[in-house]
Amino acid sequence: MISVILLGAGNVATHLYKAFSNAENVLVKQWYNRSLHNISSYANEVDITNNLNSLKEADIYILAVSDDSIAKLSQNLPFSNRLIAHTSGSVAMHDLDKKNKISVFYPLQTFSKEAEIDIAEVPICIEVYKKENRQILKDLAQAIGSKGHKISTEQRQSIHLAAVFVNNFTNQLYRIGHEICESNNIEFDIMKPLILETAKKIQNMSPYVAQTGPARRNDNKTIKRHLKQIESEEHLTIYKMLTDSIKKTHKYNLPSPKNKKKRNI
Amino acid sequence: MISVILLGAGNVATHLYKAFSNAENVLVKQWYNRSLHNISSYANEVDITNNLNSLKEADIYILAVSDDSIAKLSQNLPFSNRLIAHTSGSVAMHDLDKKNKISVFYPLQTFSKEAEIDIAEVPICIEVYKKENRQILKDLAQAIGSKGHKISTEQRQSIHLAAVFVNNFTNQLYRIGHEICESNNIEFDIMKPLILETAKKIQNMSPYVAQTGPARRNDNKTIKRHLKQIESEEHLTIYKMLTDSIKKTHKYNLPSPKNKKKRNI
Repeated sequence: MISVILLGAGNVATHLYKAFSNAENVLVKQWYNRSLHNISSYANEVDITNNLNSLKEADIYILAVSDDSIAKLSQNLPFSNRLIAHTSGSVAMHDLDKKNKISVFYPLQTFSKEAEIDIAEVPICIEVYKKENRQILKDLAQAIGSKGHKISTEQRQSIHLAAVFVNNFTNQLYRIGHEICESNNIEFDIMKPLILETAKKIQNMSPYVAQTGPARRNDNKTIKRHLKQIESEEHLTIYKMLTDSIKKTHKYNLPSPKNKKKRNI
Repeated sequence: MISVILLGAGNVATHLYKAFSNAENVLVKQWYNRSLHNISSYANEVDITNNLNSLKEADIYILAVSDDSIAKLSQNLPFSNRLIAHTSGSVAMHDLDKKNKISVFYPLQTFSKEAEIDIAEVPICIEVYKKENRQILKDLAQAIGSKGHKISTEQRQSIHLAAVFVNNFTNQLYRIGHEICESNNIEFDIMKPLILETAKKIQNMSPYVAQTGPARRNDNKTIKRHLKQIESEEHLTIYKMLTDSIKKTHKYNLPSPKNKKKRNI
């Protein structure tokens, strides 16, 4: 049985709390948050507190708080030589106060309070300062049905960067699709099966192989028509740039700056 | 029973053939392709031909060929006054030769030969020149378990444009994620649950509400670190542009050109 104390009450903390509570081999001994308000609804199932001085002993303390609060909170912990982990994709492990045994337990997923997540599907990136602390983090990942991946700081930061591209930026492309639909009286719902299939497709196929569409086919006639059709200056810039990016990936000749005016798109 | 003759042997044609063959109320009477080679493996289950002059009579002729071939093929059809439909997202219905009854039957999905598609999940955009031909196209969509949507030419072209953003461009962001992982010795597989969840999330939530990440939080510290971290000039341009786009959507102040140098990202 791994005993855990959770600190924070944001999306990651809430999803981890649910996963830990459902796990057979994990005991959430206490849940801390600066303000009790956000966790008070859990008071009948777990010991909650807003006082760092009343924190109990546990195998691991998970600091699932905002990036900016991690260092400060770790300094304020009134104990030493215990195992603590933050859950951020981008904060360095060494931002944690070294009076305790430091580590990272980073679940690679997009968490919203409203959306249910199957935590077993979430890869957990694990980083430790001292090797001997790795196993308990791996066990904790496994206890919630997930897979723990040994990841270096540099790798974790690259994963976080890649996640911005495939998650935040992708979602912004959905948003642009939404804007285009809206301004043409089309229900955005019609795009949803395509969006889902685009993500499903690369589960078993590389994005390189999965690519289709006018840029992939070097179909400059369609591209030209799209450029005429686009109403927003911002959409136009994004369209051009990502079209060029696809062409570059698939090795179509891009115009040199010199003959840009003659360009057929 | 709706009798269909299919023309073309690309991804759309092949997926439609399978859907029509599996449908109870549809009979694929004949399958035409310029070259028999690509459809010869179906010869034992359907009448195949490479000769337009031997085309039989049917309720509808589906021209599932490349955009550039649609007009020409419709001109070469050796009959008139029958119902023909193309399957393109971007070609005008009026590119079809008007000696026949013209229409569009556009399945909004990304088709690869290797990827199985549940056609029942694919919205079919339907456009007709004469109202009286709409019902049979709706019936055909329904026969394969799908939903037919009445869509104007302008709307279809907007849907096609939106599809480029949410499908082709999104897939290119996956590709960039793949490149970032590869150059840091990270298995791309670790990104796949996040990619799937990003697409699942907006099935029940608007992309506006679903957005997370440094740009959404206006977290310029993380953005600055990412900009330093990015190795490719191309990735850098795309990162900046989509970050600005998210900030604009969520109404964070962007720098005016005047104070661009002071910009904190």
